[in-house]
Order: sequence, then structure tokens, then C-alpha cells
Amino acid sequence: MGGVSLQQVVPQIGALPSGPRDAISDVAGVTVGHMTRASGPVQTGVTVVRPHGGNPFTDKVPAAAAVINGFGKSIGLIQVEELGVLDTPIALTNTFSVGTLATAQIRHCIAQEPDTGRGLPTVNPLVFECNDGFLNDIQRLAVTESDYLIAHDAAGIDVAQGAVGAGRGMSSFQLKGGIGTASRLATVRSAVDKEDGTRLGSADELASTTTYTVGALVLANFGKLENLTVAGLHIGPTIAAQLKAHEAGPEKGSIIMLLATDAPLDSRQLRRLALRAGAGLARTGSVYGHGSGDIALAFSTAYTIPHLPARPMPAIALLHESQLDVLFQAAADSTEQAILNALWSAENVQGRDGHARTALTDLIPDWAAFARQFRMQTP
Amino acid sequence: MGGVSLQQVVPQIGALPSGPRDAISDVAGVTVGHMTRASGPVQTGVTVVRPHGGNPFTDKVPAAAAVINGFGKSIGLIQVEELGVLDTPIALTNTFSVGTLATAQIRHCIAQEPDTGRGLPTVNPLVFECNDGFLNDIQRLAVTESDYLIAHDAAGIDVAQGAVGAGRGMSSFQLKGGIGTASRLATVRSAVDKEDGTRLGSADELASTTTYTVGALVLANFGKLENLTVAGLHIGPTIAAQLKAHEAGPEKGSIIMLLATDAPLDSRQLRRLALRAGAGLARTGSVYGHGSGDIALAFSTAYTIPHLPARPMPAIALLHESQLDVLFQAAADSTEQAILNALWSAENVQGRDGHARTALTDLIPDWAAFARQFRMQTP
Amino acid sequence: MGGVSLQQVVPQIGALPSGPRDAISDVAGVTVGHMTRASGPVQTGVTVVRPHGGNPFTDKVPAAAAVINGFGKSIGLIQVEELGVLDTPIALTNTFSVGTLATAQIRHCIAQEPDTGRGLPTVNPLVFECNDGFLNDIQRLAVTESDYLIAHDAAGIDVAQGAVGAGRGMSSFQLKGGIGTASRLATVRSAVDKEDGTRLGSADELASTTTYTVGALVLANFGKLENLTVAGLHIGPTIAAQLKAHEAGPEKGSIIMLLATDAPLDSRQLRRLALRAGAGLARTGSVYGHGSGDIALAFSTAYTIPHLPARPMPAIALLHESQLDVLFQAAADSTEQAILNALWSAENVQGRDGHARTALTDLIPDWAAFARQFRMQTP
Amino acid sequence: MGGVSLQQVVPQIGALPSGPRDAISDVAGVTVGHMTRASGPVQTGVTVVRPHGGNPFTDKVPAAAAVINGFGKSIGLIQVEELGVLDTPIALTNTFSVGTLATAQIRHCIAQEPDTGRGLPTVNPLVFECNDGFLNDIQRLAVTESDYLIAHDAAGIDVAQGAVGAGRGMSSFQLKGGIGTASRLATVRSAVDKEDGTRLGSADELASTTTYTVGALVLANFGKLENLTVAGLHIGPTIAAQLKAHEAGPEKGSIIMLLATDAPLDSRQLRRLALRAGAGLARTGSVYGHGSGDIALAFSTAYTIPHLPARPMPAIALLHESQLDVLFQAAADSTEQAILNALWSAENVQGRDGHARTALTDLIPDWAAFARQFRMQTP
Repeated sequence: MGGVSLQQVVPQIGALPSGPRDAISDVAGVTVGHMTRASGPVQTGVTVVRPHGGNPFTDKVPAAAAVINGFGKSIGLIQVEELGVLDTPIALTNTFSVGTLATAQIRHCIAQEPDTGRGLPTVNPLVFECNDGFLNDIQRLAVTESDYLIAHDAAGIDVAQGAVGAGRGMSSFQLKGGIGTASRLATVRSAVDKEDGTRLGSADELASTTTYTVGALVLANFGKLENLTVAGLHIGPTIAAQLKAHEAGPEKGSIIMLLATDAPLDSRQLRRLALRAGAGLARTGSVYGHGSGDIALAFSTAYTIPHLPARPMPAIALLHESQLDVLFQAAADSTEQAILNALWSAENVQGRDGHARTALTDLIPDWAAFARQFRMQTP
Repeated sequence: MGGVSLQQVVPQIGALPSGPRDAISDVAGVTVGHMTRASGPVQTGVTVVRPHGGNPFTDKVPAAAAVINGFGKSIGLIQVEELGVLDTPIALTNTFSVGTLATAQIRHCIAQEPDTGRGLPTVNPLVFECNDGFLNDIQRLAVTESDYLIAHDAAGIDVAQGAVGAGRGMSSFQLKGGIGTASRLATVRSAVDKEDGTRLGSADELASTTTYTVGALVLANFGKLENLTVAGLHIGPTIAAQLKAHEAGPEKGSIIMLLATDAPLDSRQLRRLALRAGAGLARTGSVYGHGSGDIALAFSTAYTIPHLPARPMPAIALLHESQLDVLFQAAADSTEQAILNALWSAENVQGRDGHARTALTDLIPDWAAFARQFRMQTP
Repeated sequence: MGGVSLQQVVPQIGALPSGPRDAISDVAGVTVGHMTRASGPVQTGVTVVRPHGGNPFTDKVPAAAAVINGFGKSIGLIQVEELGVLDTPIALTNTFSVGTLATAQIRHCIAQEPDTGRGLPTVNPLVFECNDGFLNDIQRLAVTESDYLIAHDAAGIDVAQGAVGAGRGMSSFQLKGGIGTASRLATVRSAVDKEDGTRLGSADELASTTTYTVGALVLANFGKLENLTVAGLHIGPTIAAQLKAHEAGPEKGSIIMLLATDAPLDSRQLRRLALRAGAGLARTGSVYGHGSGDIALAFSTAYTIPHLPARPMPAIALLHESQLDVLFQAAADSTEQAILNALWSAENVQGRDGHARTALTDLIPDWAAFARQFRMQTP
Repeated sequence: MGGVSLQQVVPQIGALPSGPRDAISDVAGVTVGHMTRASGPVQTGVTVVRPHGGNPFTDKVPAAAAVINGFGKSIGLIQVEELGVLDTPIALTNTFSVGTLATAQIRHCIAQEPDTGRGLPTVNPLVFECNDGFLNDIQRLAVTESDYLIAHDAAGIDVAQGAVGAGRGMSSFQLKGGIGTASRLATVRSAVDKEDGTRLGSADELASTTTYTVGALVLANFGKLENLTVAGLHIGPTIAAQLKAHEAGPEKGSIIMLLATDAPLDSRQLRRLALRAGAGLARTGSVYGHGSGDIALAFSTAYTIPHLPARPMPAIALLHESQLDVLFQAAADSTEQAILNALWSAENVQGRDGHARTALTDLIPDWAAFARQFRMQTP
């Protein structure tokens, strides 16, 4: 983008400030790595989100999922729901590669902890997917176990977006989709409004605030073009008219929405947080279409749970429930922002059998100018 | 409104047509009745939605709920979740009157079926609530059992909206909220798009379509004014600046969203439908705030389940899952529309201790003009 | 029982020791009160379980429910599921009195906290029920709001069992059922077995143990006599043959199973604990019959959550997940024991329309002798 | 067993008759195949349950799961929960081979439907697992994709039990576990008991009955020996004393419980049915231990759902809810029986590193004699 940051060109969502990178890696310790396979009919890949620099099997982070539409083929959520923790980094890939990556995660865990599945319990792989079969020849099962390791080892705080990693072959709103990320800062006060509008606590108490970060990373492969809504502007029909060879169809594809936070939450609270990703998703025009596996997962980096009880459990003071509101706002806003960032970061991709997806920025080179004109033409 | 219909003045949501009344009663058989208590500090009431003209205890309709945020005090959902049917009409009221209405529903059922709880099983009351305690002196528990009967017996196809029935004392976006209703027509084709965009089936098959109605009725008592978004326009901060004595606060209050349809769906499908009300809700600016009990319930009038097995079970051909998309769109759109209709129908209400809520139409007498100017001033 | 303790005559379940009272009140702070209405056709009542001596609205205890069979009409579980805490004591009564008791809990909370529903949020009533309509003329709605207060104020550590309080009119296995309670002590080690059977940690670590109490209280109104199984002996058919005027029928009625513990668990862990009540229930011969609303709820007294964030959140070190096993055993065993204690404590009751239920002890005056003979006659 | 049938030597559970094979294949159309790998430290395999002879991707069967304890690493349940159908046969294997079998199911589906994931949606693999790492060198990942095909193609109505297929390396109650199957016949009347014990309907109506089959197949790898209970006899401690080199440990391992029925049920009803497997499980001594992933899945063969809406949806009259009780009994009884059948069918197996499991029949060669003596010695 030649010196212009993504934040300068993408519409910015909400009133909360973003973190320094506007990325999930603004949550300290969280890193992201990609492995991209882009060669003719193979347009796919792997993205890995690591909750911290260590091994999540031995130092588990609290987590929970919100299955908004369960038309999806992930592995690992049953145990996350029961135990409220992650055992592994989170892997994203295409639908037919979930099994391969689950096996890769198992072998990786054994390599790190040779007693896994023997003296130690087995590890719970966690792999999410979307179907990139429009661009990618998904039947080739091109992703290999070593692709997981490459993505894992490439993880860092600079997060490439768009047609990279698992996002390589993804479509969104019948445009090019893929990976997007964003973050929001949420400042929590220790004294809150009373229900009748007056305030509790003294000025001193009000001065006591803490700022947490909520980061989102999405694998955007969802949406019906007619519904596309950017920052409240329902531009889908306009773009559809512009797009050559567009054919209307049902909402399909799926989106995976990952949320990280450094706020001290437990899995019940994280489930609540995860669900708010769905509010951000809805604002972009999704109605959680039948064929769209829309799944959100949230985790906290504020503390870890030891794998074995030989090490003591941490003594955690969770956030009070009434302090969650600004985190919910951050979750919805950063998810919506991450979706826009994915669309704005995507490049044109040509895949199998002449299938191609156009980048939104090809159709809207200058959002500010486009939006101005769009508003003027609205009756 | 002096000869001008609500539809002419409220922004209209989405591309789907509405039913003749733009009301939940566009679903044949569904009726709505109110009992309003408006007297000084008592500003509350009861709203009853009847799924059909008979007794739902003996002829049960399939139903399911989606608990988007379970900070709510309803009664009846545990059994709805287990058995997938309604036993009673749906009652809406203030938070402290749930017990009273549950008892009223029980007595009403006994009056109709004298063997209830003896030879016949007990009946499952179903009462939803929002907290109208800002305007209404909720601690008076002013709603009586007979109020339920009055609302029940008043049920008809003309649905009063705004500050009526259970909506009398409700606030939304720190403005006057209350009851809103809307409907959308959803046309289902028997042959659907293939995933790659080509079409299945011949032209003849495509010609085979059926149109169903999805109706929504909301009890709107939710929202933080700064977040208010109407038809994509984020007007909350502008209105907040206009509103005297406005004080920012967390999202509170709750919304109950009821969906009716004449499409043949089972309870699993109805749960999916109910969840899409949350997409419509999110578009208005809600992030499902911590304190907001956001609950949706959907029911179908396409068939009934006999209370006793002495009568035969109906043989039902459900809609194919892939045909649900347009119903999902209708659910989201009619819910968003119903919320706007509630705001536009509400009048100024003064309640307990000098508390008052302003009607949105006081602040925006002419939406078209307001929106035009708002768009022009957006940078 | 004239100097003979219940524990001396009822078969004792499992290898874990019971607490000093073999009652839910062995969990420090937990108390139980009854209000019994026994007069001709009115055979019903109220039982209240208080998690601690204070007000649970201001000092909430963590809690969770497991809905094993949701054919039930409780109020309050939606919010318990969302927020993971209790707001009130737990009330038990007959199916048609849930609304009345919910209202009573609201008024009681207002009396204690006059700002409830105004400056403070509304309170979440929590009332469970079973249908005592066989013995009790349930259509009279004989339970009043003040009955709740009487039961609440009567709460103490000595727990009357059998045909008392909410248990007055209940039937179990077509015999007289009602209230039962029991407890088990669970000793948790800080070092646990490895999966391959060898042990982790040194002898010193193994020496580090803590003993927790799990207490159960049941409202037993479930069971088909043919299935009755006591301590593994399937005596139902034998008892059925003995019982005059017995008529076979489906499993009906319901059971409410409350578990208390002083172990530091969060709501996710408490949901796991609650589900294990279902294992104890199954051992008595229940298959969770269609018409039997089988619901378990577990709470912990190890810490409280302040209602308002002005007070700091407690810093809690939860039990490690791998330490839960002995608590699960205690939950299953104390539930089974509580059911047997209910059956053994029940007296003959005659109710409406000449309906009567026989106490099990009328049929089995001496269990040891009966069991010996039963075993000998088993082929 | 030399001319003696399993039914003649294993204690028989409950009063309902079994089907002709006492196997899940008594449900017409259901077949089972195994692929066993037994060679030194490799003691593992694959078991496939086919719901019908066709392709479940194009003709889906209704299904639902009950996750009793979600400490498990299955794939496929999220979509089963959302859509209520199976896409594939059900595969069972060891914990580390889930990914491999998921990939095998995908390739198998592509081979049958070459448009899978392109013109047609992607397929939802369904693989369950238990950890056989005590006997089997699970870290070798010895199961291959072709093992799935072998097991699939071997499927028939004669179901081998014990240390075969996925059951090869499994342990149960620290004895040899594995595959077990059983069935029960459930006769449903069209007129049911009234709640007060009198009967509805005339003698003619009572004469109208239909008999359905419920079949269970378990992969038994669970249980703590001290808890082992056979047909109500708590023999665990006795067997533990007998067993050389026994070391007490927590309940571990997991059990997968599959239920098939020819009764016309929908996915909501099948979820209810599946949960009753947990009642049968509890009777054997399980308290659903923390480390035991206890998952049940039920499906119906009464009708199929077409993959594409071009084919009409079937018009189904489901069973009335009140008719489910005898099916619930059949589910619990056949599950308990299947567990016993697994234990009785298992042979001694020696696996990795000198680990071995003893068959229960080595310790109890003659159950009738053992049980007689056990009862006599019970005080």
C-alpha cells in the first residue's frame, strides 16, 4: 500500500481506539503465522494463532466458543466446551484439511511432551475450517502436516492479512476474502453506573481504571454480495451491479472469528465475549446463512492453568460481570473491523478451472470518495 | 398519524416485501392483545401473543428459543427447549410480574381443561419480561392475574404498537421504547443454487415456489443511545447531543423478540430461525450488553401436536434445510423493522419520580429530511 | 425412629464417609427450612435451601444446573446458566406454586434491598417444582407467599426429611416420596495418578490432602415402581407384587437434586458436578422418563461474588480439574443416598379424593432382613 | 464359546426382550465392520457403523448426540447438533487416529460423489475415539486411511465383539474392554396412562401397538475397577482383590455409546434418547469420571433426508412424546447390556511395554456360580 497504512484507507469502526498494530497480536504474547500454497488450482494454506510463546498443552489458556451456526467441520470444540481451556495453538485451514492438521498438532505435541497419550493424557487438537473450494481445488487435499509446523514456527506479531495462509482461497461476499485482524482497547472502571443513571462511588474510585485489549482475527469466507454493508452503508447491490459475471446465490462459506484478550475472564465469560463477535458480523450484512458455519472462539491470556495438579492453580480475581460491557463492544467492533480489513487487504486471486475472485479495492479504490458519492445518491 | 401509515414514515428494512399489516398477525391465526396500566407512577402492562385461536395446551405449536443473553427472568423456556412446543399463549410483562402471569396462565388452563395437573399433565407457563423500572414503579407489582385474561381476550389481528401493553413503561436507547411488530414474505424455491454458483434443476422446477410469512413482535427495552443505528445510519451520538438531560450509561434493559411463521419447521429449525433475530438486533446498535436479557423465540403455525397420543400425530414434510436462507433473512429484517416500528410508535411517557422518556419522533419528526441532512454532514 | 438413627436402618451407599449429619447442612453455612401444609386434600408445602446466612443477592454464590430432563416448570435457570450465580435462596414447591414463590422471593429481596429493580438490577427468583397432584389438590394453589417466608425463616442445620415441606405430597416409585438429604466427604490429593497407573509426586506431596463436603438434598417425586432398585437390588417387582391396588404406569413426576459443596469450584465445574447427580439417580432405577423433569443444581459456598463492582472480586484458586473425580463420586453417592433417605423417612399420607401413598418402611420394616432374603431368593 | 451363546452366559439386563441377534444390527439396515491391528505394541483398529446400505451423504439419517462428559476428541458433532443428521457412517478408533479417519471419510465421499466440496457442499466426517494408549503404542499412529475402507467394506449384520476393531486396545474397569453390542424391543401403545393412574382409551385402542427396536453399540474404555457393578452386584472390590498387580486409579478412558432405532424420531427426540444411554452407563458403576469422555449418539433409520431439495422431503409422523418411555428404557438397558457384552467378549490382550489386560471371564468363568456365592457372602 506504499506508505499508507491500512487504517488510513479502511473505514474505522466504532468509538474505541485500536491497539498499536490494530491486530490480535496487540494482546501481549499472541502471535500469528501463515503458510500459503498458491500455485495454479491450489490456492489454500494454514494459519496458526498461538496464545502465548510456550506450550499450551502444559500451560493452558481459558477459552470458550460460541457456535452461531454449526454448519462447520472443526475439531476440538467439544472438549473446549467441557473443560474451558485450549490444549494447542489454534489452526485454521480448508475444510478437507482438518484431519491432517489435527494429526500434525498431535505429533507436534508428542515432540514437545514425549509422554503425551501415555503417562500424560492425550492432547485435544483444535482446527477450524472454511470451504475454499471455489478458488482452490479442495479435492487435492494439498495441505500437509508440515505446513502446520511452518505456519506455527512463522508466528510473529506482524500479521499478514488478505489472501494469505488459510485465507488464500477464501471468498467473502463473492469477492476475495481471507484473513483479517483488528483490535480495540477497552477501559474498565471499578465503579459502575447504577441502573437509574446516577453513579456509584466517589471520584477517586472512578479514577481507578484499567485498560484491556481485545483482538480479533477472522477467516472470512462468508456473505452474499447483495447484503454487503460497510460501516453502515448497504453497498452490496451497487457493487453487485458493477461486478462482471456476478451471479446471485445464497449466503455460503462460513467465517471463523477468534478473539483474544488480556482481561482476566473465565470460560463462561469468554463464551459471552465470543458471542458478541456475532454482533459485529451481523453489521456487515450477514444473517448467519444456513450454509455458513459461523463460529467464534475467545481466549484470555491473563493467566494459565497448569496441565498437572502438581503445580498450584493460580488465584484469579476475574472481572466483575458488570465490567464486561466495554469488552463486548470491543469484541463486536474489532470483529467488524477485522472483516473489513480482510476485504481491504485481499488481492485478486485466480484459482482452479478459471475461477477468480476480485478484490474489493479493485472496485472501490478510494473508499472516502466512494462513500461520499454513495451517500449523496441515497434517496 | 393522521392518515399516514407507519410504513410511510419509518425507514423500511431490507428487500423483502412485508405482509399486508406489516405485523406478526400477518401469519394467519396469530393474534395479539394488550392490557395497559398507565396511571401516575404505574406505567406497565401485559401483552399476549396467541399462536392460534384454539387452546395451545391441547393443540401445541412447535417452538424454540435462542437465548442470546440470558440475563433475564422468563419462565417456561426449560420445557420449550426439551419438548419443542408451546403449552400456552406467550405473555410479556415487567420483570416482577412474571410469577403473577405464570399463575394466571395456570388458572386459565385449568378453566379450559379441568383435568390439568390431575388426569392431564401440568401446563408449562411461558412468560417473558423486561425491566420497566425506570418509568414504572415496578415495586408495586401492579399487574394482576386478571390483566392477563384481559390482554388474552383482547387479542386480535390489529396490533397496537409503542407504549402499550407490556411496552407501556419500557425504554429503548434511553428513548421511549415498547412494543413493535413487522413481517416479511419469504419465497422459497424448490430447487436451489449449487455451491459453485450454477443452478440445479430445470426452469419448471424453479417455477415451483411457495411464499411463507415471517412475523416479528418485540418488547424493546434495550440499547445505549450512543449506539443507536437506524437503517445503517449511526445517529446515536447526534440524538444524544440533542437530548436534554441525557446521561450515558451501559447497555441495559433487555429485548424479547418473538417470531412466528407459517412455514413447516420443527423446533430445531425454529431455534435456528430465532437466533437470526439477533442479527437484526445487532444492526440497530446492540452488542447484547451484559445487563440486557436478549431472548428470541420462534414458533410455527404450520401444524400442531396433539396433547394426547389418542389423537394421531400429523405427517409433516418440513422445509429442506437449504430453503431456510430466505426465512433467516426475513427473521433478521422483520426484527430490525419491528424495533424501528416500536421506536416510531412510542409516545412520550412520564412515570414514577418525575422520570420521563422522549419519543424518537419528537426528536426526528421527519426521518427522510433528517437522514438526508445526516448523510450530507457525514465526512 | 426411637433412638435409632436413619443411617443405621437405611442401606448406605458407596465407600465415602458421610458428614456428621449426613445432610446438605454438613456443608458449612447451608441451612434448610420447611413449611408444610397438610390438611385433607391439601398436602403440599415449601422447602427453602439457603446457601449461606446472608443475602445471596448481595453476596452471590457460584452455581450451575444440569437439566437432565427438561420436562419441568422451574423459574430462574436461564440466568443461572448465563451468569453462573444464585441471586436468592433455592425454593422448592408444587408445580402450580412456582409463580407465587417467585413473587415472594422478589418481595423478600425488596424488603432486604429497597433499591432492587430501581437503582439496583432486578433479582432472579429461583424456584423448582414437582407435581404433587396425585395426593395434593394442586388446583387449589394452596401455597401462599408467606409460606415462603416461613420456610425461609425456619431454615436451620437440622433437616427434616420425608413428607415435609415441598415433599409433603410427593410420590416416588408409586410409594410415598418427598425430601431426602445426605452428604459425603471427598478428600482431594494435590498429586494425582498418571494415566499409566504410576504415581506422580513424592510422598510429601501425597500427604497434602484437603477434605471437602458434598451435600445433596432431593425432592423425590419420580420413578416407576417396577424399576425400583435399592443399593443394587432390583426390588421393584417384588414390592409391586406386595402393594395393594398398585397399577403400573410410566415413569412420571420429576426429581429436583440440589448439591452443595465447600470446594472452590466455578460454575463450569459445578455444572459438571451437577450432572453426576444423574448417575446416582440412575442407580435407583430411573431412566429419566419422558414425563419426569429431572433437574440438578450445584452451588459452592467456598466464595461469594459481590453484587456490585464497588467491592473487589475475590481471588480464587479453583480446584484443578483432575481433582474433581472424588467430588463426582460424592455427588453421585450422596444423591442416591438422599433418595433412599427420602423413601425411608416418608410416612403414609392420605390426600385428595381418597388417594394415598404407602411408606416404603411399611412394606420393608427391616431392610437387612429383607435384603438377605431377597438375595437368597435370587436365582 | 463353543456352542454356548453370549446371552446364555452374560447376565441379562432388564425386562424387555432383545432382538434376534442382541445387536445394533437388529435395527434393519444397520451394519458394523471392524479392521483390527494386533501386532506386538500395536493393538488398535477401526470400527464402522453404517446406518443403511446406501450413502448417508445423499440420504441422511436423523441423529443427535448427548455429550455426557466432553473430555473427548471426536470430530463432527458440531454439525450434527446444528443440522440433526449424519453425513457419513460413524467411525470409531483411537484418539490419535481421528484426523486420519476424518480424511479417509472425506476421500471416500469424494469417490462416491465426485462433486463433493465443489458443486455439492463439503461432507461432515464423524469420528469418535477412546484412548487405547495403555495397551497400544498410540504414538505410532498405526491406523491408516485404508483401514477405514476395510472396516467400512466389511460391515455386516454379524457383529464381532470384544477386542476387535476400535476395541482392540481398549480397557474397561482396568480389565480388557472393547466393543459390545445389544438390542431391546420396545412396544409402543397408542393410548397411554393418564397421570392419575387410570387409563385412557378403550381396549381396542390399547390393542393397537407397534414394536420398535433400539440397538446399542459401545466402545468401552472406561471405569474404575472398584466401582464395577454387574447387574446390580457391586463386585469391583472383590475382583480388584483377585487381580494381580492391580493399582487403584481415577476413572479414565471414555466410552462411546451409539444407539440406533427404527422408531420415527427427530433429532430433538434422538438427543433425549441418547442421554438415556448415560443411565445404563451409570448402573455399571460409572460416575462419568473427569477424564472419561462419555458421549452418546442416537440415530433413526425410519426415514432419510435428501441431500438436495430437488428431491422431496419425506412426510413423517413422529412418535408422540409420551410414547418415548419404553424407548428410553430400551436405550438404558441395551447400553448396560452392551457394556457387559463387551466385558464378557473380551479376551486377554498383551500390548506395548509388557502392559496387559485381563479378560473378566478369566476372573469369573461362571457368572451364575460367582453371583450366587457373592450374594451369599454379602452381609
